[in-house]
Amino acid sequence: MEWKNELTQLLGITYPIVQAPMLGITTPAMVAAVSESGGLGSLPVGGLPPERVAALIREVKSLTAAPFAVNLFVYEPAPSYDRKAFEEMQDFLQFLYGANRLAVPRVNFDEVPFYSWRDQLPAIFAAGVKLVSFTFGMPDEAGYKLLKEHGVTLIGTATSVNEAVVLKEAGTDIIVAQGIEAGGHRGSFLGDSLPQVGTMSLIPQVVDRLRVPVIAAGGIMDGRGVRAAFNLGAMGIQPGSLFLRAHESLATPGHKAAIGRLTDTDTVLTRGFTGRWARGIKNKLLQEIEASGLQISGYPYQNELTQPIRKLARELDNTDFAVMWAGQSAGKARAWSTADIFAELVRDTESPNH
Amino acid sequence: MEWKNELTQLLGITYPIVQAPMLGITTPAMVAAVSESGGLGSLPVGGLPPERVAALIREVKSLTAAPFAVNLFVYEPAPSYDRKAFEEMQDFLQFLYGANRLAVPRVNFDEVPFYSWRDQLPAIFAAGVKLVSFTFGMPDEAGYKLLKEHGVTLIGTATSVNEAVVLKEAGTDIIVAQGIEAGGHRGSFLGDSLPQVGTMSLIPQVVDRLRVPVIAAGGIMDGRGVRAAFNLGAMGIQPGSLFLRAHESLATPGHKAAIGRLTDTDTVLTRGFTGRWARGIKNKLLQEIEASGLQISGYPYQNELTQPIRKLARELDNTDFAVMWAGQSAGKARAWSTADIFAELVRDTESPNH
Repeated sequence: MEWKNELTQLLGITYPIVQAPMLGITTPAMVAAVSESGGLGSLPVGGLPPERVAALIREVKSLTAAPFAVNLFVYEPAPSYDRKAFEEMQDFLQFLYGANRLAVPRVNFDEVPFYSWRDQLPAIFAAGVKLVSFTFGMPDEAGYKLLKEHGVTLIGTATSVNEAVVLKEAGTDIIVAQGIEAGGHRGSFLGDSLPQVGTMSLIPQVVDRLRVPVIAAGGIMDGRGVRAAFNLGAMGIQPGSLFLRAHESLATPGHKAAIGRLTDTDTVLTRGFTGRWARGIKNKLLQEIEASGLQISGYPYQNELTQPIRKLARELDNTDFAVMWAGQSAGKARAWSTADIFAELVRDTESPNH
Repeated sequence: MEWKNELTQLLGITYPIVQAPMLGITTPAMVAAVSESGGLGSLPVGGLPPERVAALIREVKSLTAAPFAVNLFVYEPAPSYDRKAFEEMQDFLQFLYGANRLAVPRVNFDEVPFYSWRDQLPAIFAAGVKLVSFTFGMPDEAGYKLLKEHGVTLIGTATSVNEAVVLKEAGTDIIVAQGIEAGGHRGSFLGDSLPQVGTMSLIPQVVDRLRVPVIAAGGIMDGRGVRAAFNLGAMGIQPGSLFLRAHESLATPGHKAAIGRLTDTDTVLTRGFTGRWARGIKNKLLQEIEASGLQISGYPYQNELTQPIRKLARELDNTDFAVMWAGQSAGKARAWSTADIFAELVRDTESPNH
């Protein structure tokens, strides 16, 4: 098993294994543990205030001198949304919470916060971060220019061949190809309909189309998945669900327990939680939102609408009302330390019968 | 590359490569070519009259003495369907055809034919067929008993871990695990919602759950896919789209040309063509059916409703109104002979850089 390749060279790492950025799950400790293990940790900062971005980067840097990536939501919030639809959904949610004896504060439409990736760049440049991954879209021409001027290597996220082509042509250095098996948000950003291409189909077609290092994401949980991804032509892999139950994960005990019981068909693709398509565990909150028939606002509005209940559900460890991301293979995740999970993945890939 | 394994032994073949049964596409010549090449050809006979089943088996046997499988739709047609919904869809289709200057005969609801797998068994037993694959469901206890008494090895189709478990426990010898990438009909038969599990996620989870040979289907088009499937734990592979453009394929020139232009996102899952979920190329007929908002009858009623236009579209080679099955990787299919396609797959698996 030869791990060194063009990708490890580009990223300055030992193993071409990238921990998927999972906002709300990934901690600086998880990022550092992966990078210290020889992989690439990814620090998710999508939508966070610049001072928080700076603090999180400092925290990772205090834990490791190894390379890590900062992950951005490259996304422009729509200037305005349908206030009526927003409030109708909010009224419905408040009724639902009341019926379940949950006291959840209302959200003020005019105070929905979202810090753009543009707002975050100064903190990233100031910290000397040279690896930036992004999802939900792509920088504009000025953005690419600025990032390149600061010597940043760019890792974009594609869910179709066409998205990969567009990313590459704009100057993205590395493509994460995200199959439909993956948990959490889809990186989709082109076209009207969501691409739903399986990892087995997506990777070879992206690889055949582009001369660019491709990182496979979606359904990879052990050495079998790593070897399969390499066989399909990927130069690296990006597991996410693999780390959901890690000691360093922010997932609540209830979320981690639900992952432990997960079967291949327990997750669904939905816009109900955040306004963007994402894969998570079916639960009461989602069923009620989808059964309501109400219009779901776009991101970040629906996301903000569900923030208060997510906060409360976290405090109460209430899995009926939490948002619990997971991929189709998440049931295989282990409740180990991040370092142990990483080491086992390497061992299992090198000698499947150890 | 060691091809011999428990599966090749069970099936009496050289390469654990099974040609997917594709009703309306697969010919006896295609079946025989795959079996003559050392793989397992599959003759689809779902819903056909028993005398036609006997004739097709005779035709394959006249072309090869090697083993091949007969593929059944193991499915009980519902005793009655909503006649009003059927006629409303029929009226809509007739209007659509008229607006497109296509003269298509109406279908008589009371004359919708469907030969059950039970009706077909005598022809299969009489011909001495010892390999039967099936999809859409599973035989009842009496059916398993009868098939086993005739010394038949059974290959069932699962789209989720749970379906695989149920098939295995009933006495199925081999499981085809069909990932969401696959073209044509889904084999799903349990639960209210369609499992949409990617091949990368499905195969290891089925393999871990069951001690039974697993054949991977969905997204496999070349040696990369074959090696990936084996790495995931499969003992065999079942490509379908790979053979769509074969010289022996019944696909029309227009369908074959559309396959040649196909990208990863050009297919959709739909019930619109047949009443069962299946993956095919988006075209005018499908868009109109889905946009109509009319109720789609169950299989085989919707299937029968679209038979006359499918027949006419085939005669005219009209791709707007044809039903064109295809998987997410079908764009890689080559317009070669079945034997050449098969040999290339073996070569590409054995030495990727030939």
